[in-house]
Amino acid sequence: MSTNPTTITTEPGTPFIDIERVVDAAPATVFRAYTEPDLVEQWLGPRSLSMKVEEFDARQGGSYRYVNTDDEGNTYGFRGVFHSVDKDERIIQTFEFDGAPGLVAIETATFEDLGDGRTRVRAHSVFPSVEARDGMAESGMEVGVNEGYERLDELVAKLDA
Amino acid sequence: MSTNPTTITTEPGTPFIDIERVVDAAPATVFRAYTEPDLVEQWLGPRSLSMKVEEFDARQGGSYRYVNTDDEGNTYGFRGVFHSVDKDERIIQTFEFDGAPGLVAIETATFEDLGDGRTRVRAHSVFPSVEARDGMAESGMEVGVNEGYERLDELVAKLDA
Repeated sequence: MSTNPTTITTEPGTPFIDIERVVDAAPATVFRAYTEPDLVEQWLGPRSLSMKVEEFDARQGGSYRYVNTDDEGNTYGFRGVFHSVDKDERIIQTFEFDGAPGLVAIETATFEDLGDGRTRVRAHSVFPSVEARDGMAESGMEVGVNEGYERLDELVAKLDA
Repeated sequence: MSTNPTTITTEPGTPFIDIERVVDAAPATVFRAYTEPDLVEQWLGPRSLSMKVEEFDARQGGSYRYVNTDDEGNTYGFRGVFHSVDKDERIIQTFEFDGAPGLVAIETATFEDLGDGRTRVRAHSVFPSVEARDGMAESGMEVGVNEGYERLDELVAKLDA
């Protein structure tokens, strides 16, 4: 099991969130985990929430929507569209939380091939205001990010086995 | 002919561009000018460039692409996808200039009904970095914005006639 660190950067006074993580799998495997709905469903988000991908059409102009549900039955829905999907290299998509309608972020995920079956994932998110970014950064998202990447490690290990 | 002022705000050190303009037409007319390809082609951008809308599918997940050409035949292409299109109220879309591939902005245009056939248009653009925003702000875009809104005034006057 990988124990690569995850770096989350939220510079004060900016609308940006930057996440960096090395994954012990080749870019093609990581790209599959980011674009195939049945794989996305297995890793995205924290362990404590159930995850249902309702739509995930990872191509330019495609839409996605997924819903997290907690133990008490509260649901958290997220949706967006794909601006561009460059195989094994980069995905640019919008992101909107049902609980903050109209506050739409744009995210760029890049997959850098480090060789030896390792990939550096960089995720750059831009929010429509500093306040919207702060709201996301203070929502406890680091739990979901860290647990999500742990689950991604588990998934890519299985895919590459 | 309307001579409403256009306000362009580019706060230093931020990735935002905010544009505000009152248009002498009802929101439904302004919305048409923003979403119907044959109308978009008549007003978007500066007078000095020819404008060809190649694709303009203004619905959630729809794509757009248009190309400006100057007198010397130089072309400037732009494309994006629509995150949401709320009739007569709001459009959220991505924006990418061919000359800066991968630097994708997200734009929110809102149409506020001021009554008496007047609409306040607010356009909030967010770039992936302060540098990318500065590049756009320093590109001479204010000519295109101001002339574009003048042309929009002319167009909506015809549509409402």
